[in-house]
Amino acid sequence: MNLKQLSELLGLSQTTISRALNGYPEVGEETRQRVMKAARETGYRPNRAAQRLATGKAGSLGLVMPISPEQSSDIHFAEFQSGLAEVCLRHEFHFVIIPSQPKEEQQAIRGLVSSGAVDAYYLAYMREKDPRIAMAKSLPVPFVVHGRSLGLKTDYPFLDVDNEGAFREATDLLIGLGHRRFGLLNGPVELDFAQRRRLGVDQALTSAGLTLSENAITNGPMSDEWGYRHMKHLLGLPERPTAILCASTVLALGAVRALDEAGLVLGRDLSLIAHDDDLPLLKPQNFTVPLTTTMSSLRNAGRRVAERLIAEITDPQHGPPLQEVWQAELVVRASTGPAPG
Amino acid sequence: MNLKQLSELLGLSQTTISRALNGYPEVGEETRQRVMKAARETGYRPNRAAQRLATGKAGSLGLVMPISPEQSSDIHFAEFQSGLAEVCLRHEFHFVIIPSQPKEEQQAIRGLVSSGAVDAYYLAYMREKDPRIAMAKSLPVPFVVHGRSLGLKTDYPFLDVDNEGAFREATDLLIGLGHRRFGLLNGPVELDFAQRRRLGVDQALTSAGLTLSENAITNGPMSDEWGYRHMKHLLGLPERPTAILCASTVLALGAVRALDEAGLVLGRDLSLIAHDDDLPLLKPQNFTVPLTTTMSSLRNAGRRVAERLIAEITDPQHGPPLQEVWQAELVVRASTGPAPG
Repeated sequence: MNLKQLSELLGLSQTTISRALNGYPEVGEETRQRVMKAARETGYRPNRAAQRLATGKAGSLGLVMPISPEQSSDIHFAEFQSGLAEVCLRHEFHFVIIPSQPKEEQQAIRGLVSSGAVDAYYLAYMREKDPRIAMAKSLPVPFVVHGRSLGLKTDYPFLDVDNEGAFREATDLLIGLGHRRFGLLNGPVELDFAQRRRLGVDQALTSAGLTLSENAITNGPMSDEWGYRHMKHLLGLPERPTAILCASTVLALGAVRALDEAGLVLGRDLSLIAHDDDLPLLKPQNFTVPLTTTMSSLRNAGRRVAERLIAEITDPQHGPPLQEVWQAELVVRASTGPAPG
Repeated sequence: MNLKQLSELLGLSQTTISRALNGYPEVGEETRQRVMKAARETGYRPNRAAQRLATGKAGSLGLVMPISPEQSSDIHFAEFQSGLAEVCLRHEFHFVIIPSQPKEEQQAIRGLVSSGAVDAYYLAYMREKDPRIAMAKSLPVPFVVHGRSLGLKTDYPFLDVDNEGAFREATDLLIGLGHRRFGLLNGPVELDFAQRRRLGVDQALTSAGLTLSENAITNGPMSDEWGYRHMKHLLGLPERPTAILCASTVLALGAVRALDEAGLVLGRDLSLIAHDDDLPLLKPQNFTVPLTTTMSSLRNAGRRVAERLIAEITDPQHGPPLQEVWQAELVVRASTGPAPG
């Protein structure tokens, strides 16, 4: 039963029905009762997120969306957001997005909170010693951090992937296969997840008495284009790496293209492990040589952040902040093999 | 100059400065003047989208976001949105998103408009004879349709790509190369853009005395997975097509995988033209065999829709509704060749 069918059933305009259900005073009580009864009997239910927005009750999650040339149109952002939207729909929440340049983020968060337009919000794209966390803790609206911030005490609510552990484990696998020269195709240098991934690689190499040469580390946007450029750089090094850790399947797409052009065979001439955010668009098993990956679903992270925020709104907890670290799953496929003789 | 630096300069807390700039009464007049003066002299400017949200002035664009299993995490949606966000940032607007199931969309639009929370909004994922257009025209808030709706009089403001013309021209190119058996990897059957693309293919074939066999048309979500499945279906037909029209580079990604598996060479054994939304992630020139495409930037469409909405808010026009049809650009690369002997 939709609004149009209800309108035909009752012989009332869709506007009248909508107003009746939303309690507008211009609809008479008798009509309102008739509409309510029909809505109950037919199971008609209006969109509650829209109703709440119309009545000024929040029912809303907020987000300050970082906009910079590198981050625009980020498929990782979209994937997280789609998990968030799915849970918002189920709980009949809407969301408010303020686009912001990185240097204006704190002011944007303050505005978002003081507006009363959102019941809770989340922080993302965390950096080292991120000043947004202290600000969020000082404000009276619940929040969850997606990620963490190196250099700060972890006394705030967060959901993060064990990036350090995932890249340590991946590096250990490659060391076990006999590799000695490593390269790291990493994300933006200022972001916490990229820093932790590097830490994981460093830890594993140090334990094995190896080091990661500075010029074998690249940092940049997580796009196909940069994966290609950075892999070409790594292939041009005098001591070419035989094993590559890669921060995303999107970077891997370009990296594999650079390998193909150089006539190198993945899994034989060079091994690669990519982090897999479980993007429906880019499945690692669908690469010509299926990729070995560390996997953690970004959409599940979006779902979980939305669930935690909504739970905090409907039933506030007063214990210590909830801190979740998800383990990534190491999935071995054909892109990893013994170090070439 | 950011808030923290201004705070250090003045010896006032960031909260006090923010309150002073937002005119909160708990800040004394003398302090407020001092803050205003320093902000002017140092060029400090708070995030105005956040300020507007906080003061209840809208400065906001709205969107009802369709959520269904097929449309979630749609990279096309994200690409359009990133153009929109870029223009919102420049004009200091925020945006409000209501996730909605398709059958609740009308109620969601009504709620969005009656809320006063947005100054303008846009409609997307248009279907045939789409009832949302009549509803939008009856409501007092400006809107722009991204796309059009077959079966309705076009008396509403819209921005669309000439999907029919693009696919007609692409089909003509393939006919000129001697192809006689065609296949169409299309988007969801209920969406207007998919219907117009099919019309374009049909027109070109009819003019050449050819027809498109019903079982050589596939409809479905625009994902890599469906591109793969549908191409396998086409390759299994008794009268296998030699020329394929494809609705997205994302579908093409899977389609090319199916070709590779079948040992067929693109541009020699089979020709393919894909529509290219100019997704930074998937450039047609980066496919192993570069793809011939019809190109129109989705990000530019997002930018243009935001610009038109904001122009309509700041300077309402009373002439006929603005209707824009963008021509796609046909770019010939290696995936098209003469029909195999």
